[in-house]
Amino acid sequence: MDNLKKIAISIGDLNGIGVEIALKCHDEISKICQPIYCINSKMLSQASKLLKLDIPEGFKLFETKGEFEIKPGSVSKKSGKYSYNSFLDAINLANKKKVDAICTLPINKEAWNKADIRYKGHTEVLRDYFGKHAIMMLGCEKMFVALFTEHIALKKVAKKINDNDLTNFLIDFYKNVKSENIGVLGLNPHASDNGVLGDEEIEIFKAIKKANKYFGKNIFRGPLVPDTAFSPLSRKNFNYFVAMYHDQGLAPLKALYFDESINVSLNLPIIRTSVDHGTAFNIAYKNENINTQSYLNAIKEAINLSNK
Amino acid sequence: MDNLKKIAISIGDLNGIGVEIALKCHDEISKICQPIYCINSKMLSQASKLLKLDIPEGFKLFETKGEFEIKPGSVSKKSGKYSYNSFLDAINLANKKKVDAICTLPINKEAWNKADIRYKGHTEVLRDYFGKHAIMMLGCEKMFVALFTEHIALKKVAKKINDNDLTNFLIDFYKNVKSENIGVLGLNPHASDNGVLGDEEIEIFKAIKKANKYFGKNIFRGPLVPDTAFSPLSRKNFNYFVAMYHDQGLAPLKALYFDESINVSLNLPIIRTSVDHGTAFNIAYKNENINTQSYLNAIKEAINLSNK
Repeated sequence: MDNLKKIAISIGDLNGIGVEIALKCHDEISKICQPIYCINSKMLSQASKLLKLDIPEGFKLFETKGEFEIKPGSVSKKSGKYSYNSFLDAINLANKKKVDAICTLPINKEAWNKADIRYKGHTEVLRDYFGKHAIMMLGCEKMFVALFTEHIALKKVAKKINDNDLTNFLIDFYKNVKSENIGVLGLNPHASDNGVLGDEEIEIFKAIKKANKYFGKNIFRGPLVPDTAFSPLSRKNFNYFVAMYHDQGLAPLKALYFDESINVSLNLPIIRTSVDHGTAFNIAYKNENINTQSYLNAIKEAINLSNK
Repeated sequence: MDNLKKIAISIGDLNGIGVEIALKCHDEISKICQPIYCINSKMLSQASKLLKLDIPEGFKLFETKGEFEIKPGSVSKKSGKYSYNSFLDAINLANKKKVDAICTLPINKEAWNKADIRYKGHTEVLRDYFGKHAIMMLGCEKMFVALFTEHIALKKVAKKINDNDLTNFLIDFYKNVKSENIGVLGLNPHASDNGVLGDEEIEIFKAIKKANKYFGKNIFRGPLVPDTAFSPLSRKNFNYFVAMYHDQGLAPLKALYFDESINVSLNLPIIRTSVDHGTAFNIAYKNENINTQSYLNAIKEAINLSNK
């Protein structure tokens, strides 16, 4: 029992489905890790009553301060603030090595905005906290996709593709995932058809070559033709992909593995995994049949990365 | 028998797998249509001997002129020229209403180039022949994707999104597929998050509104968030999607339905469907276990569209 990894769990927006997921999955995840939930006993008791769910035995807390009335499905300043504090507590626990990793439940961006929290999401907070460029990776055991560019307009993507930045990204990415076989996507249709449709593949090719040279082995392959990169045959060759932009990687991922996917922040001093879904305000506290697969996978990956 | 639709089949590059597919599938497709193969008896006899496959009974030909030695797996000027002539014969048959539709087997672009044929592929020939903007649609019964932009560099896509062109595209598309529920994708991550990540969604939104007004009903929905548009839940709502660019639609499609997918040219005076794979030179004439699903689906869709 004591040799199980300790995982701090930030509780997410208490007006959403996060706390229900945490309560329902506790018995299952306790078999594989020691969860520490960042929520105080008053707030937990309020949530459990509203949910008509008992608090499971051994539900260990880190008492995140604050108190407010839970209003299922509402965007609220107080709930936004509390979810932020719960997240900060989890980060601090990991930073002080009191836990091996953190796993985050969904926050509501509008609620953060109402609470004057200037970040758009978890990843931005982490970048600011640690002053490091976190790598955003999404997926599940069968297929993980790291994003070279993230939340930028599509028209700005091409200019961001340069071999220096991409080489550094690839080197950092390998150091984190240690997969010996990583598919790197091209940018253009047909990976440009030898320069007929755009030329950014030249930069991508250079970066692949340099990163492979850095490690002295052929880890990175590509530039892969984007539309066939995720075909069943190609997925037999790669579990890890690097996509040049948000939808290039995430549209195929969500087409294939919507419910199972998780979000991982790599390249930071701490390990952080997350569910890949939102607060689901529409079904919060309604005792609906909520899908817990993403959370369970996020916990498993947090343990997996802690062991690396 | 006589009420079955007549389909002209262009034989594709004879150094590739097209003719093998045609021979192997003849008995099956003859139950649902009357195929007419654009190949002469000398070339067919040569291919059948090389393949050690008998020519099935009732294998009706349109004798496309030309003669050369088949060299399995080679890029050849003569084979390129022949595949082009076979395609032209099929088009002419359809244009003269001798057949109800055409179905094309794969050609080799390099071979066309060697033969001084200035087109990059079938669709370009059709556009030139009919002087009309063919709409390129790929997919299978479960999910079809039409491409608003096709073979252009990714950096050029955003500039092409304007509400006039897109409105016309949507109107033409509906007239061809007659689906009452068509998903239209946004361009940017999160469909721009209300203008935070790009602004092309404004144009897309306008086009959707105008096209719906044109038909007096809510056919088109969107702009859909691109990375969740093809999730299992979203695919329950839509069988037809309009993608803003090549890989946005084709990467999820090929992730899900690689072997079943076909290519359809819409908005032309004739009906044309095609396999969605290449000449597979590496396995041509080797009696490999070739996948015929794309061809069978292409034939079925040609019949289906003929009946509309």
